Amino acid sequence: MQALVLEEKGKISLRDFDITESLGPDDVRIKPVAVGICGSDVHYYREGNIGEFVVREPMILGHEASGIVLEAGENVKNLKPGDRVCMEPGIPNFKSKETLQGMYNLDPDVQFWATPPVQGCLRESFVHPAGLTFKLPDNVSFHEGALVEPLAIGVYAAKKAAISTGDNALVLGAGTIGIVTALAAEASGCANVFIADVKKEKLDFVKEHYGDKITAIDLSSETVTDTLKNAGVEQVEIVFEASGSEKAFEGITDCMTPQGTIVLIGMPNAPVPIDVVAVQVKEIELKSIFRYVNIYPRVIGMIASGKMNVLPLVTKVYDFNQSLEAFEYAATLPGNEIKIMIDTGF
Amino acid sequence: MQALVLEEKGKISLRDFDITESLGPDDVRIKPVAVGICGSDVHYYREGNIGEFVVREPMILGHEASGIVLEAGENVKNLKPGDRVCMEPGIPNFKSKETLQGMYNLDPDVQFWATPPVQGCLRESFVHPAGLTFKLPDNVSFHEGALVEPLAIGVYAAKKAAISTGDNALVLGAGTIGIVTALAAEASGCANVFIADVKKEKLDFVKEHYGDKITAIDLSSETVTDTLKNAGVEQVEIVFEASGSEKAFEGITDCMTPQGTIVLIGMPNAPVPIDVVAVQVKEIELKSIFRYVNIYPRVIGMIASGKMNVLPLVTKVYDFNQSLEAFEYAATLPGNEIKIMIDTGF
Amino acid sequence: MQALVLEEKGKISLRDFDITESLGPDDVRIKPVAVGICGSDVHYYREGNIGEFVVREPMILGHEASGIVLEAGENVKNLKPGDRVCMEPGIPNFKSKETLQGMYNLDPDVQFWATPPVQGCLRESFVHPAGLTFKLPDNVSFHEGALVEPLAIGVYAAKKAAISTGDNALVLGAGTIGIVTALAAEASGCANVFIADVKKEKLDFVKEHYGDKITAIDLSSETVTDTLKNAGVEQVEIVFEASGSEKAFEGITDCMTPQGTIVLIGMPNAPVPIDVVAVQVKEIELKSIFRYVNIYPRVIGMIASGKMNVLPLVTKVYDFNQSLEAFEYAATLPGNEIKIMIDTGF
Amino acid sequence: MQALVLEEKGKISLRDFDITESLGPDDVRIKPVAVGICGSDVHYYREGNIGEFVVREPMILGHEASGIVLEAGENVKNLKPGDRVCMEPGIPNFKSKETLQGMYNLDPDVQFWATPPVQGCLRESFVHPAGLTFKLPDNVSFHEGALVEPLAIGVYAAKKAAISTGDNALVLGAGTIGIVTALAAEASGCANVFIADVKKEKLDFVKEHYGDKITAIDLSSETVTDTLKNAGVEQVEIVFEASGSEKAFEGITDCMTPQGTIVLIGMPNAPVPIDVVAVQVKEIELKSIFRYVNIYPRVIGMIASGKMNVLPLVTKVYDFNQSLEAFEYAATLPGNEIKIMIDTGF
Repeated sequence: MQALVLEEKGKISLRDFDITESLGPDDVRIKPVAVGICGSDVHYYREGNIGEFVVREPMILGHEASGIVLEAGENVKNLKPGDRVCMEPGIPNFKSKETLQGMYNLDPDVQFWATPPVQGCLRESFVHPAGLTFKLPDNVSFHEGALVEPLAIGVYAAKKAAISTGDNALVLGAGTIGIVTALAAEASGCANVFIADVKKEKLDFVKEHYGDKITAIDLSSETVTDTLKNAGVEQVEIVFEASGSEKAFEGITDCMTPQGTIVLIGMPNAPVPIDVVAVQVKEIELKSIFRYVNIYPRVIGMIASGKMNVLPLVTKVYDFNQSLEAFEYAATLPGNEIKIMIDTGF
Repeated sequence: MQALVLEEKGKISLRDFDITESLGPDDVRIKPVAVGICGSDVHYYREGNIGEFVVREPMILGHEASGIVLEAGENVKNLKPGDRVCMEPGIPNFKSKETLQGMYNLDPDVQFWATPPVQGCLRESFVHPAGLTFKLPDNVSFHEGALVEPLAIGVYAAKKAAISTGDNALVLGAGTIGIVTALAAEASGCANVFIADVKKEKLDFVKEHYGDKITAIDLSSETVTDTLKNAGVEQVEIVFEASGSEKAFEGITDCMTPQGTIVLIGMPNAPVPIDVVAVQVKEIELKSIFRYVNIYPRVIGMIASGKMNVLPLVTKVYDFNQSLEAFEYAATLPGNEIKIMIDTGF
Repeated sequence: MQALVLEEKGKISLRDFDITESLGPDDVRIKPVAVGICGSDVHYYREGNIGEFVVREPMILGHEASGIVLEAGENVKNLKPGDRVCMEPGIPNFKSKETLQGMYNLDPDVQFWATPPVQGCLRESFVHPAGLTFKLPDNVSFHEGALVEPLAIGVYAAKKAAISTGDNALVLGAGTIGIVTALAAEASGCANVFIADVKKEKLDFVKEHYGDKITAIDLSSETVTDTLKNAGVEQVEIVFEASGSEKAFEGITDCMTPQGTIVLIGMPNAPVPIDVVAVQVKEIELKSIFRYVNIYPRVIGMIASGKMNVLPLVTKVYDFNQSLEAFEYAATLPGNEIKIMIDTGF
Repeated sequence: MQALVLEEKGKISLRDFDITESLGPDDVRIKPVAVGICGSDVHYYREGNIGEFVVREPMILGHEASGIVLEAGENVKNLKPGDRVCMEPGIPNFKSKETLQGMYNLDPDVQFWATPPVQGCLRESFVHPAGLTFKLPDNVSFHEGALVEPLAIGVYAAKKAAISTGDNALVLGAGTIGIVTALAAEASGCANVFIADVKKEKLDFVKEHYGDKITAIDLSSETVTDTLKNAGVEQVEIVFEASGSEKAFEGITDCMTPQGTIVLIGMPNAPVPIDVVAVQVKEIELKSIFRYVNIYPRVIGMIASGKMNVLPLVTKVYDFNQSLEAFEYAATLPGNEIKIMIDTGF
């Protein structure tokens, strides 16, 4: 079948790929309709690895997808051919200890799309467990469906934060994940959400599309303290660390209320110095997330009900036969672009 | 000073009332500007008691108020004369076991405005602890400030429910408390909020003012199951029982997800039969609230940030010198009225 | 193979039973060594049904078992032939929504041993998912292993209660489940645990075997209030309702602290009147359990470390060939017996 | 009155100290009977300061005390002259925001005994809020009462950890706080508790007095991994970091289960490098404590019921007139001593 293949570091082909998958009784066969390009796809393309995950064989890219069900296994009750769906890209061992405890994302045997040696979804069709495939309501588009994967991280971060009505939140880092986290926090009961970065173009994007909901803080010219004060907010209950930058941890508790929560989302390259005593004197709690778990129906529900307006995040769309161009563009992404989407046309 | 006095059951006067209060070091003196009429005020007026709380002496009415600080005690740092404020009407023993544990609302020694023998706030001025007095931002009006008290119940219910992003909620009972609870749930991360009742006028009010956010279910012509289904919602994670009606408890878990939560807000007149086994087979949790605690700043923050649009709840306004008329009207309140407000003009 | 078969209501045979099970890759084949008789086994024997679960075909009894692994499927890593084990008797759909959320006990498709039409474990061998089979440490006997199932309910109830160090707890009902719940609560950080009933023999059992850890309250001659007072305990944070009796719910909150927790364990035959207002004025929380989930390793750990001394619960032991006699005895169980155990001798 | 006075850095006197305190309506006057010497007392003695808290005026030492009520204010209901009691040494502003939220330990205005410029309790008598004074049951000795303060930290850490029945815990650091934390964890539902350090004498103390309950790990000759394995424990759900050592944070998550909890108790001198990604891939949660709050009655309950055997912690006792000698000894404390206690004889 046709597929977008990362042959090796730096080399992508659009070509026929020999892959046959049998449909199990609990599976569905799906053709992808829209697929977002993720930073990790680009990273494999440019570097050939992410940490210990090394591209040793040609690998199909893509893990942020929506599509249409082609075929359903005999046990599948909730899905049928023709259904519009989106999919979780990580498939756990369904009988593992972690899965039984409701944290299948932490199962060490998870098979995650487009993470070597697991094949991704940018191909004509693939087989997937029905339990990780979610129907899209009529008013949720394929583009929105393909956004569910990156949104899932933000919504899971917001869920983990256990936001109480009227909390105020600060997001550190205005990359894609920072922005979707801010959107999720805003939709989850926060009175005010702030997002801080030094990247002007990202902040401009936030101001333009979400200025009525989220307050951008340009750290190159403003301080968190002053911006909060101007907004009538003394301190925030929650900080979402979405930058992965060591610098973000300096004085991170200064603007926080006692018994506030930090959610660790960004992944720093090396251990980060944390002021334990500063954490203790406010009894701050640090929570962390790894991808997401049991969150897709929640994301879909928030989009369908209009609580999260996510289409502005799709800033550029390519056809499948333009995929190489799309990846080139994504590899040197201008600051004002957020999500590059591929319409497969299958 | 001038005050609205419940002389005895069925008899209210607008008259001079002899009351002198000294200002303690942690207190503020306040003149009320707007005061809402609560069902309990009306109940004392009509019945002369609520349960064991009996009006034996003339009692000043009113406990939902906003106002202006006239004078501040020597220890008070956060408030000064001229500040626009609203107040919690229940004053606990600040050194009680319950207060130290953060549940001052459950302190048995709470002194609650306009609950015999404690005087209410419909008078020229009163003294109040600064710790229970909250500054209103410039963009929050006195009417909104006076609404904070009834809203506090809804927001506290939503906070207790520990809503996760994308939960769906059903509110049983579309009285004032049911409506404010639905508004709070909607602003707290629910994907969909439904409110069910048989009172057509209440449901019409919801449809007119909050139809884009809350789905009204007219139980005289629709079922909960069908309405959820039409909205693409299989089951709800949270039920807010705000009717206090025994009937509401019949089959209450039917539409709920496993491990869902019921929040008990309405106060039935007698013990209510609950199907314990139905609760168990879904591992439903029942939480309950008594008034509210540590919630005012959250409510004010939600109003100030535009997350809760509450002004439509004020359906009629009277001047202080029309107070008798206001109470007469409130005592036979048409179904389309929600909150009657008195502008004191002090 | 030899099996203990409930042919129909009131008739048990020890006979050859034709049953063949293939071993899947994630399964183990086990021979049972010790099997406890549960009240539900007896109920099926005497009544032929439990609610809508009706014995229509001959059914092998037994679901509280320990045993030895005979054979392990190809994917099984943690178990090997010869391992001493105990098993969860309920097998969910591993790919269901509930399982993925960590609440496989609430999966509507659970297949539970000795619940029609599912066969039980009182037979020469059976096949079971390795993920629901747990190795017993050397210092945990087969009898203790077979007790894990009923203990699981008590430990799960204690876990759900979220006991904090120094809480005091009251267990209502001193049946087997009440006693194991009291043992679990005692081992989970409670300062004091009380157990109340009117059945003198059960209370005598508690006093004899656990008198140093649990305080028995004979409701036919003592009040809860007085007993607590004598123990220097004003109120309890937690009530475990393990009687299933409507009477237990009368005034159930009277002895509780504000924000206390009731755990609903007993299953009343009909809806029970609950005083909602009494619940609310203390902001009591009601939690409920259905069987147990993710709890076996915890129970085994508590037995292995000596934190729960459970062998006294086994009050009588029969050989497999005495099974009919064992069931006769269990069907008219004297009050001083707790758990009847069958040593299979396989 | 007679008092033990830290005149300045390095100089302690036993002398008459001029101090008069009036008894407020909510206060009690107490004479101390037993007072433990804390590391902080010794630190002020040797260094003249702890961080920014500098001894500028003569300061009475002591904050771990039990005593007898001499006099009770007019509002005090639960205490009367002659009552045996222990006291929380930190007095908050009872009307502060933090106190009303149940976290009075985080009130920035807390007045803490023997923290400059607040006077300590090693004197003939002192006045204290009744709400922070707790009656000792008859079976709790004055020495145990004086131990409640250091125990409170361990019990609060265990409470914060939200231990579930059957969790396994590892305590890093076997100083006094590490040991009391291990004792609290052991009494709070853990199946197994391990405590690791390199200080042989501390570990020997643990083995001698608590060897049946707590497993000591000598990091100079054993690894955590091996010791856990020998005990049949794969991983621990909870790590209590009680060493304050940067080294303890290296690989701290290696032995932890997914979604495990680290409680930060030790206070490192400088920011500590933390491997955020290692935390994330297991979704570890880091909680922190500052002193304790609402914990004294729980500690007293655990001692009174025999769940925590704490008297072995008192390894040496001095009379009040030997106080100088006691402090000299405490200042160069041998590793086998845990708590030095002063019997005042007042």
